[in-house]
Amino acid sequence: MIIILQSDATEEQLRHVVQRVEALGLNAHLSRGTHRTVIGVIGDEAKIAAAPLQAIPGVAQVVPVLPPYKLASSEAHPQPSVIEIGHVQIGGPFVGMIAGPCAIESARQMETIAAAVHRAGANILRGGAFKPRTSPYAFQGLGEEGLKILRDTGDKFDMPVLTEVMDPRRVELVNRYADMIQIGARNMQNFVLLKEVGQLQKPVLLKRGMSATIKELLMSAEYVLSQGNPHVVLCERGIKGFDPETRNVFDLAAVPAIKALSHLPIVVDPSHATGRPDLIPACALAGAAAGADGIHIEVHHCPEEALSDGPQALLPEQYTQLVAQIRKIVEILGRQIPSAGATPK
Amino acid sequence: MIIILQSDATEEQLRHVVQRVEALGLNAHLSRGTHRTVIGVIGDEAKIAAAPLQAIPGVAQVVPVLPPYKLASSEAHPQPSVIEIGHVQIGGPFVGMIAGPCAIESARQMETIAAAVHRAGANILRGGAFKPRTSPYAFQGLGEEGLKILRDTGDKFDMPVLTEVMDPRRVELVNRYADMIQIGARNMQNFVLLKEVGQLQKPVLLKRGMSATIKELLMSAEYVLSQGNPHVVLCERGIKGFDPETRNVFDLAAVPAIKALSHLPIVVDPSHATGRPDLIPACALAGAAAGADGIHIEVHHCPEEALSDGPQALLPEQYTQLVAQIRKIVEILGRQIPSAGATPK
Amino acid sequence: MIIILQSDATEEQLRHVVQRVEALGLNAHLSRGTHRTVIGVIGDEAKIAAAPLQAIPGVAQVVPVLPPYKLASSEAHPQPSVIEIGHVQIGGPFVGMIAGPCAIESARQMETIAAAVHRAGANILRGGAFKPRTSPYAFQGLGEEGLKILRDTGDKFDMPVLTEVMDPRRVELVNRYADMIQIGARNMQNFVLLKEVGQLQKPVLLKRGMSATIKELLMSAEYVLSQGNPHVVLCERGIKGFDPETRNVFDLAAVPAIKALSHLPIVVDPSHATGRPDLIPACALAGAAAGADGIHIEVHHCPEEALSDGPQALLPEQYTQLVAQIRKIVEILGRQIPSAGATPK
Amino acid sequence: MIIILQSDATEEQLRHVVQRVEALGLNAHLSRGTHRTVIGVIGDEAKIAAAPLQAIPGVAQVVPVLPPYKLASSEAHPQPSVIEIGHVQIGGPFVGMIAGPCAIESARQMETIAAAVHRAGANILRGGAFKPRTSPYAFQGLGEEGLKILRDTGDKFDMPVLTEVMDPRRVELVNRYADMIQIGARNMQNFVLLKEVGQLQKPVLLKRGMSATIKELLMSAEYVLSQGNPHVVLCERGIKGFDPETRNVFDLAAVPAIKALSHLPIVVDPSHATGRPDLIPACALAGAAAGADGIHIEVHHCPEEALSDGPQALLPEQYTQLVAQIRKIVEILGRQIPSAGATPK
Repeated sequence: MIIILQSDATEEQLRHVVQRVEALGLNAHLSRGTHRTVIGVIGDEAKIAAAPLQAIPGVAQVVPVLPPYKLASSEAHPQPSVIEIGHVQIGGPFVGMIAGPCAIESARQMETIAAAVHRAGANILRGGAFKPRTSPYAFQGLGEEGLKILRDTGDKFDMPVLTEVMDPRRVELVNRYADMIQIGARNMQNFVLLKEVGQLQKPVLLKRGMSATIKELLMSAEYVLSQGNPHVVLCERGIKGFDPETRNVFDLAAVPAIKALSHLPIVVDPSHATGRPDLIPACALAGAAAGADGIHIEVHHCPEEALSDGPQALLPEQYTQLVAQIRKIVEILGRQIPSAGATPK
Repeated sequence: MIIILQSDATEEQLRHVVQRVEALGLNAHLSRGTHRTVIGVIGDEAKIAAAPLQAIPGVAQVVPVLPPYKLASSEAHPQPSVIEIGHVQIGGPFVGMIAGPCAIESARQMETIAAAVHRAGANILRGGAFKPRTSPYAFQGLGEEGLKILRDTGDKFDMPVLTEVMDPRRVELVNRYADMIQIGARNMQNFVLLKEVGQLQKPVLLKRGMSATIKELLMSAEYVLSQGNPHVVLCERGIKGFDPETRNVFDLAAVPAIKALSHLPIVVDPSHATGRPDLIPACALAGAAAGADGIHIEVHHCPEEALSDGPQALLPEQYTQLVAQIRKIVEILGRQIPSAGATPK
Repeated sequence: MIIILQSDATEEQLRHVVQRVEALGLNAHLSRGTHRTVIGVIGDEAKIAAAPLQAIPGVAQVVPVLPPYKLASSEAHPQPSVIEIGHVQIGGPFVGMIAGPCAIESARQMETIAAAVHRAGANILRGGAFKPRTSPYAFQGLGEEGLKILRDTGDKFDMPVLTEVMDPRRVELVNRYADMIQIGARNMQNFVLLKEVGQLQKPVLLKRGMSATIKELLMSAEYVLSQGNPHVVLCERGIKGFDPETRNVFDLAAVPAIKALSHLPIVVDPSHATGRPDLIPACALAGAAAGADGIHIEVHHCPEEALSDGPQALLPEQYTQLVAQIRKIVEILGRQIPSAGATPK
Repeated sequence: MIIILQSDATEEQLRHVVQRVEALGLNAHLSRGTHRTVIGVIGDEAKIAAAPLQAIPGVAQVVPVLPPYKLASSEAHPQPSVIEIGHVQIGGPFVGMIAGPCAIESARQMETIAAAVHRAGANILRGGAFKPRTSPYAFQGLGEEGLKILRDTGDKFDMPVLTEVMDPRRVELVNRYADMIQIGARNMQNFVLLKEVGQLQKPVLLKRGMSATIKELLMSAEYVLSQGNPHVVLCERGIKGFDPETRNVFDLAAVPAIKALSHLPIVVDPSHATGRPDLIPACALAGAAAGADGIHIEVHHCPEEALSDGPQALLPEQYTQLVAQIRKIVEILGRQIPSAGATPK
């Protein structure tokens, strides 16, 4: 950590800062510049992570040197992590193809969609049983009934299943049915929920909040990791922007930026990032080309009748075409899409 | 609701849209323009709020006409609401002065700060017992022990108390101690939590999420209101922006913009909005001048030793000066700051 | 155009709005809904584009139906445009590979870089002679001397050359040397400059402003087109965002979004979008996969000695590797990278 | 300046960085920490402002210590500057009230509006003769004819006049008519134009770009100052945000943030910041309370017939009421609104 003093800081203020640093068991190393004095703090930076040095009179700026997310950082774990979701791997050479409807509506709907995406090459089935809806008057999901449908459909097609949990009181329930648990963008900093899923040994898909920086996303991953659950997959799903042309801004550069900082796999979700089915294929191909470890896409056989987010879903035939193109791109990059189970039971 | 068709929509697509509208029990009114056909939907718009009309082939755009937040809207309730927090009112002519430390650290700390802000003119005491911290390694709050300290301190100075709840399983506990319950910015779309506090009859301070639009804030208020709790106060505390000069962007125009849409009181929080104590006074005065129904400010007697967010707290003497100026401004505007209880017990 | 009245608009206000519409030579078509009255305006929308109908008492909202950029829109010109820059085509099946240093520094520097990027497969050579620098104390470019160097180097390697113009008084000068003229992001709404280049018949590379919506970019293109110059290529180079991790946010979805609205080719510039050489390859591949009509990358043989923006340049060997991968991706998508001239003269 | 090396930087890389620093005539001061080595650079930081140290292998981060805007900084000039626009002062205790229509439309229109705002207490008259319009098909201003009308109207009411220049070839013309020259938000980084007005001795109103940070605004001011023109007034007029509720985000905290960094006066423009007349009064009062050195408001006697931006103008009677309230607030803060000339001639 580096502490930059104000240009008019007094000697007494300087001494006070040095005392505070030494009181934390660290060493202070002074550089007196032409205009400013700078204090290098030597020792375990974590000791002062939480200390409000910025509030000390005379301090202009505090510059951390080490990332505050230790377990999530590449420094701690230089090789990319490979996460196992049931029999499907994500990360390293493996690219997950996560597909399914926004909300689970019925067994028939799930079967229709699962059959289509399984045939197209998807290897993880998604569907929401508890839906975070902006409006209290909108469809909120089928609840446990939905979880059962999802589990049965996944088993039938030998696809591991992913579903979202929103309530810490339901983590245990969702854990019983799901192979991977999603923390949605709106809950990325729901630290209560993060701690709950951190106590499982179940893979977690942690979606980036709409206004979260990459470092904040990694700090939220750190919450899960620090509780003992190392199976975290990150997901870029669009951040807030000023242009109404797309629902969110698909922050594609987050893929290589996260790979430079962390060993955790990073998946992209062009469905939520754009909110427009006509933009999903181009963004999905871009994600694959940028090195994403998975592509998460909403698929519905009849978007105009979907109970949630219909307008952003691909049709099954569009998804089939898209997977074929994604496959060519990941192969160029020396990667592969693991298969789901071979045949529906 | 207005449905604008694509310029190349076919007659069959048009008929299909009209059928869908009529199937919902509504009337479709056609305007055939030079370039496009437009369908006015007549009847109860709520019936189609959740229908994915946008996904129907041939539809270019769906324009809602009514706000989707009914209980929160000024159309439903033209007079500004006045919310009672203990014996202190917020809204209409009454301006709440909410002050206290970020985190409750000890009984002595709370007493020191409460004495100072009470003397300065604050009328509601705040303090966090459960802290949402970006880092899992940072101080997470004293928990119930903190709630007890807060309650005791509030009683001593006859100030109603405000504290945050993050976990739906703790709503009942927090409700026992607090006069007003805060939903933090990171939980503005934690719909599980919103529904829990919606089942109380306790005032709720609902903070705007860093990337929430004003309409999304009102939709979150609607969650609380629709569960039966009408005592909601909104809070503008800064939104995400691109300039690192301030922690967030203080969206001052949200104050009059919310007043144009809703009857709910709106408080400003320049501490979180700016993250810089040197900017807080100017922003607090601005909030008062813009018609905010309350000013929420963090105060700490020793910011450099604060366990949370020290660098953004005002010193008690700065707060005292500031309240004197705020009082002059609200009086110019024909408003008043209600008193807390007269003397410490 | 659709005019939505306020819920409490009077009959007199309604009549006034209808009069205004009819005074413009258009027809007003009323839909009286349950809560609001809506007026469909039938006739040439352009007639009222500039009329401040929003300011009429009783009007709640004005919703345009047609895009205000006519010449740039796909409705006007359904087939993608192919633009010729010297002997190199961009658009349709052709993908431009634009490369070179940020600033032209010397003939030797340009020759070194041009030889490298030509060998790698670049087909257009870029270099700045007039540099828009945030600081008045930074290197501002070599001016006409730089233009000569650029022209000579381009001729030597049979590569068309691209350079930026900032001053309307220098458009004629730059036009003499360049095969394509760049309007930089900071000048995207410098309407004076747009009109000047609109009077040439020289291809223009129009970069998206950091805070410009896609529609604003198309309106700026319309400025050039409406002056008579149809040779416009758009460029996505990053928009402002809240995360300091990257210099800007690379808005990848702008590529398909622009293709849905306009026939003009769209190039991506991951150098400026990210400001980080370690992120450029992934973003460039993503751009190619998303269907961009060109990839603009800064290359320098010695970034640490570059006079401008060194830290964001790729090394020649990195560029060579990248072009090989881009080529594979564009071929998968049925496209090709046109060759520059075969051998240096 | 502080240079932080990567954790795996080699001794050779370290030596290379030190050599580069010393080659610039500066001293390098090493701090070897537990995890990283940090180099403090001692000497004139300006020497290395433009050196691409970030590009040197082994360098993780470069942290500047001094602001790059010298002439604009408070360090250079600790007292607030007072700028004279004709006989009206802005800055220090003086608050400018700038009012007038968006565009000059006719002598009669200007006289009507000037009479009204003069009576209300405005002390500077604004009006646009060259308009930067997003659409090439919109009204572009009356040109020199407009400048004459503005000059005549200003003389009649003894009000100094402000108007925008967009074209460097017209600076001399505009300078002949105006008492203060506006650089609009879209031209904040039109460095060619900044250099032109820097060569005058005429006050400049420099508006903040929609995506400009405060430091970038100060760097643009530095362009003008460094050319020899010290008469610069800054203007906050809204930045890009994600919420369509207001046209831009009114960044009120920029007022105290700029005062902490610079001696230049800072004016607020709630008309452009919000784009909604119903929000202008609250935002104008907020600006006054936050210490703004001027309030810039568009006023039109018939917004629905205005040729430009009618929907964001206040009516004269609204403006009159507002100035009365602003006056009370600035007086509380110990400031004053200078008078324009006493009576119309």
